[in-house]
Amino acid sequence: MSILGKSRLARPLDIANGRVDMSHGAGGRTMIQLIGELFLSAFDNEFLRREHDAAIFQLPPGRVVMSTDSFVVTPTFFPGGNIGSLAVHGTVNDLAMGGGVPQYLTAGFILEEGLPLAELATIVESMADAARDAGVAIVTGDTKVVEKGHGDGIYINTSGVGVVPDGIEIGGERALPGDLVLVNGTLGDHGVAVMSKRENMSFSTQILSDSQALNDLVQAMLSAVPGVRVLRDPTRGGLGATLNEIANQSGVGIELDEAQIPVRTEVKSACELLGLDPLFVANEGKLIAICPPENAENLLAIMRTHRKGKSAAIIGRVLEDSRCFVRMKTQIGGTRMVDWMAGEQLPRIC
Amino acid sequence: MSILGKSRLARPLDIANGRVDMSHGAGGRTMIQLIGELFLSAFDNEFLRREHDAAIFQLPPGRVVMSTDSFVVTPTFFPGGNIGSLAVHGTVNDLAMGGGVPQYLTAGFILEEGLPLAELATIVESMADAARDAGVAIVTGDTKVVEKGHGDGIYINTSGVGVVPDGIEIGGERALPGDLVLVNGTLGDHGVAVMSKRENMSFSTQILSDSQALNDLVQAMLSAVPGVRVLRDPTRGGLGATLNEIANQSGVGIELDEAQIPVRTEVKSACELLGLDPLFVANEGKLIAICPPENAENLLAIMRTHRKGKSAAIIGRVLEDSRCFVRMKTQIGGTRMVDWMAGEQLPRIC
Repeated sequence: MSILGKSRLARPLDIANGRVDMSHGAGGRTMIQLIGELFLSAFDNEFLRREHDAAIFQLPPGRVVMSTDSFVVTPTFFPGGNIGSLAVHGTVNDLAMGGGVPQYLTAGFILEEGLPLAELATIVESMADAARDAGVAIVTGDTKVVEKGHGDGIYINTSGVGVVPDGIEIGGERALPGDLVLVNGTLGDHGVAVMSKRENMSFSTQILSDSQALNDLVQAMLSAVPGVRVLRDPTRGGLGATLNEIANQSGVGIELDEAQIPVRTEVKSACELLGLDPLFVANEGKLIAICPPENAENLLAIMRTHRKGKSAAIIGRVLEDSRCFVRMKTQIGGTRMVDWMAGEQLPRIC
Repeated sequence: MSILGKSRLARPLDIANGRVDMSHGAGGRTMIQLIGELFLSAFDNEFLRREHDAAIFQLPPGRVVMSTDSFVVTPTFFPGGNIGSLAVHGTVNDLAMGGGVPQYLTAGFILEEGLPLAELATIVESMADAARDAGVAIVTGDTKVVEKGHGDGIYINTSGVGVVPDGIEIGGERALPGDLVLVNGTLGDHGVAVMSKRENMSFSTQILSDSQALNDLVQAMLSAVPGVRVLRDPTRGGLGATLNEIANQSGVGIELDEAQIPVRTEVKSACELLGLDPLFVANEGKLIAICPPENAENLLAIMRTHRKGKSAAIIGRVLEDSRCFVRMKTQIGGTRMVDWMAGEQLPRIC
């Protein structure tokens, strides 16, 4: 992102009525104006003010964790958030799940010709708010514009770096038989919020996306229990896909206890209507933690005292199983497979 | 990017005849298969093999430089490269222009439903080759799929980090009156190569994009002349936009000498046909360097001995000018303004 400090265009952007056009991505003065008046004013920080194509900063000592995610969620605005806040939360959470303290993000925009500038401004403000709340800075970016019919309003990529403190070793391959599986709250909220907006469904109680940054919760958890072995956010594919990945990476089985898995009643009902299984629906403010059994009660207590872990629960345990099966004891007393092929796959949920 | 090591799908991807479908972005087993058989096998490295949503690594000591770029070039394949090689070169070069030694990249893909897997595989191989050649590793990634009619085959975001050695201070705000302006080779090749493919033009000599990684050239330059003050790659908006940005950031004027600016004869002719000015056409393997006058001849010699700087030239000088004008002495003896509003702006050139 290269920016001209003093724009020489006579008139400011008409954010209320204007629309994105091809010139906003073509490298000329109108692109510089869009970046300056819309992005820089929202994300304002010392790195962006240097107006380089790249940001330069110092990182605290430690291993570096880096992640990237592109966001193509439809609709762009959904109950509880929009693509902008989601794009910040998603990458902050990926960094936190690596055991890292998120520090700096980048933002790459692919805008479709015709996108109302007012809509873009709202999304950018949401990104700025989400970044501030999570304690990260958006330090560099890029804007491209594609012709009408070659995008869907807006796609956003965020990439980020963080630092993993010494002594923290988190990884999907570290689960051991006997470990317990915890979750910080109710499952399926994000996917159902997006799907209900997409399908124009309304419920007596509005279902909000759980989209939120989890780095503060993770810090609290790791301070109290540095021996946490696995952290993972069950986004696309939901709890089912996430646990199957972990089971395969660690070469273990996992047994869930259905009675312990928190799912909102409204989400359950909506899932029935939509033909979905909450175990396979995306979350954007939830994490799975796996820790040694002797730490589990302590970890649970820490999570429950945190605003973002009030409904935390121990939902299962890790077993010896070379087939790497994920299974669930059902509430009626049986056992079912939780295979990640099961359940509807939802496209463009994030 | 989360990946299942041992895919349990019976049949391998049909790369020769298959196409991207919505399930490839939905978080389930077919997405894992796409990532495993196509991305991981091409980018193979120790970080990707850990199969996390984030990569963890150590960086050498120094300041960290970070950059991001989304690539939406059309057509996806052009003479001299494709969107994959371009996506690696673009971010490697942004890091190098910050004075950094590029280390690690991320790759975010937005694929359009229906994209032939064979095309995707070719692009991914080009990325892998470009990364290997530039000495960087692609350590984490993300894949999303959008419905037919909401993309244009493929969009790629790359983000990257590098390390700036102590003693190197590069910045667009550092040009001083008296400094000289150098370029490493001919201007306009990338933009004209893409436009001629887009417009189905053919010339007696094929014009190739100059897309290439410049980090090795930059290392050679900075080793010999650590006092280089500005480095910038004249991509979108070309030399004209880049020099106007620098002039404004440094609060100086710049005077170019048209006779010294290297432009291929074929590119000049194509620009005349297309109604373009080579000064405003994008480059993807070129850099502008500004250094104190006493270092310029040495820097030029270093550049000319490097394979990527054979046609390097001193093309202008920095002047005191509070209006921050960029001007050019023309070959017929006059002077013209090089304002970045002038010249056609080309959309989707990178």
